[in-house]
Amino acid sequence: MKIAIAGAGAMGSRIGLMLHQAGNEVILIDRWADHINAIREKGLIGEFEDHEVVAHLPIYSPEEIVEDHANVELVIALTKSMQLEAMFQDIQPIIGEKTFVFCLLNGLGHEETLAKFVPKENIIFGTTTWTAGLAGPGHAKLVGSGSIEMENLDPKGKAFTLKVLEVFQKAKLNPIYSNNVRYSIWKKACINGTLNGLCTILDCNIADFGSLSVAKNLIEAIVGEFAEVAKAEGIRLDQPQVIQAVEATYDIKTQGLHFPSMYQDLIRNHRKTEIDYINGAVWEKGKKHQIETPYCSFLTQLIHGKEELLNAK
Amino acid sequence: MKIAIAGAGAMGSRIGLMLHQAGNEVILIDRWADHINAIREKGLIGEFEDHEVVAHLPIYSPEEIVEDHANVELVIALTKSMQLEAMFQDIQPIIGEKTFVFCLLNGLGHEETLAKFVPKENIIFGTTTWTAGLAGPGHAKLVGSGSIEMENLDPKGKAFTLKVLEVFQKAKLNPIYSNNVRYSIWKKACINGTLNGLCTILDCNIADFGSLSVAKNLIEAIVGEFAEVAKAEGIRLDQPQVIQAVEATYDIKTQGLHFPSMYQDLIRNHRKTEIDYINGAVWEKGKKHQIETPYCSFLTQLIHGKEELLNAK
Repeated sequence: MKIAIAGAGAMGSRIGLMLHQAGNEVILIDRWADHINAIREKGLIGEFEDHEVVAHLPIYSPEEIVEDHANVELVIALTKSMQLEAMFQDIQPIIGEKTFVFCLLNGLGHEETLAKFVPKENIIFGTTTWTAGLAGPGHAKLVGSGSIEMENLDPKGKAFTLKVLEVFQKAKLNPIYSNNVRYSIWKKACINGTLNGLCTILDCNIADFGSLSVAKNLIEAIVGEFAEVAKAEGIRLDQPQVIQAVEATYDIKTQGLHFPSMYQDLIRNHRKTEIDYINGAVWEKGKKHQIETPYCSFLTQLIHGKEELLNAK
Repeated sequence: MKIAIAGAGAMGSRIGLMLHQAGNEVILIDRWADHINAIREKGLIGEFEDHEVVAHLPIYSPEEIVEDHANVELVIALTKSMQLEAMFQDIQPIIGEKTFVFCLLNGLGHEETLAKFVPKENIIFGTTTWTAGLAGPGHAKLVGSGSIEMENLDPKGKAFTLKVLEVFQKAKLNPIYSNNVRYSIWKKACINGTLNGLCTILDCNIADFGSLSVAKNLIEAIVGEFAEVAKAEGIRLDQPQVIQAVEATYDIKTQGLHFPSMYQDLIRNHRKTEIDYINGAVWEKGKKHQIETPYCSFLTQLIHGKEELLNAK
């Protein structure tokens, strides 16, 4: 299958590399000049736990994408949330009538963005438990294992989605056909919508947050707001189950000692966060449905305040 | 007048010293052993801007207070909020039928606490704009000027309150007889209830907070909750006026470059904060009146979380 990875950061590099190794024709699209140059010079280095691979994959900045690539069958969206719209504006030349888009971004609100560029029957949504890191430009560190849930947004997209599933299976990406991918996306957004913002604003790791006497109350209040808004959007979240999933991360044997990605972005690297696509999206959607979401709105504003104080870019 | 200062920290030392200098019989009560020892050995040092005074005032720990001091006419309460109840439990021997208590603590909820120990007609409430600091045990640094508002809680207390006013006048403490001291207390609580918690959780000074794009929204949301609860308690806060008072503190020529006291307590000195007597009190009172106060409850919990993370004592 001819596949473009729109947003070839750590996770895009992992998925692109594994799909390439399974014999697919993969092109990478990213804006980071050093990354592009490194991959063009030395290839994409994939440092797995027990071996290293180098793949000479073509990589382009979005502006370089022209109709030469118009036969791309699948675009896998893996940008940062705030870059999704600009990316799809730039790569329109390769999105033909038959091109499918598989959105693997975290957060909420991406359906609305993609709908501007792709018909609903050509959209697949998903979530992943794979992890990935970058040791530097062109150099991905790939430890652990994971899986990928996927589902077509429209029944008409099912046949092609099952083809994608097969392609991912061959690439050992452990795909699962989901019967309710929106539920999975909201559930994951709840985990990010609690731990990301709270650990960032309290300046602590996940286990330390979990040890606080106020942790349970805060989680319940935030998940409660997510659930109410999700319900208005037709998704009934099982709150005790979601809260359990959040609390499962406190274990120091799994994720407890980690600082969430938002913490790393903002506190360590002074980068703007994706809060607008998590708690901020719930706040926005809540307004639309006349649902009050004060915890989400307060947390979103605190994170934006912290971004300004740290002069985040 | 025979006056006891219950809580002789920085502000208690200032007021005690100035009342003593005006010829009153002042005793200090405090729990800090080093402070007690220093004052017993060398007297209380008051370092004013242009001169220094040393006053050999009697100082006791609350447990030492016995009926020898039963002729105290006025007890000025200046403890930390969380210490008020324990202080009054200990100093009961000196609170006779005629003893008045003048409460100058910041925050809300102290009426209920004092009512356990003193009849309402013997209670005076007030707020002050004086400032004070401690350079070390027994050594107060006293710069600037200020005033003190005061009002009896019950009409029966007015005659004695006017006597106190005269005593404070002679001590150049610039007293003002207030016609609505509860209003002043709530207004001051709004200023503390916004700047204290927000600067502490965002780790910034007042001017930096004021410069944030989210500052106005956050202030409005929190003051809105204070106003709704105050209304249920019979006090109608003028929200635009209160918000203006908060925003006036952003000026770097006045308080802008300061870190609020809660920041100093928690972030610098790892001490527990008074949040339960500010935003936490609004949350509690809100529950009583069936008023939702999510911003106050969230902020209270974040500060408690931060206290635990910093192992605050």
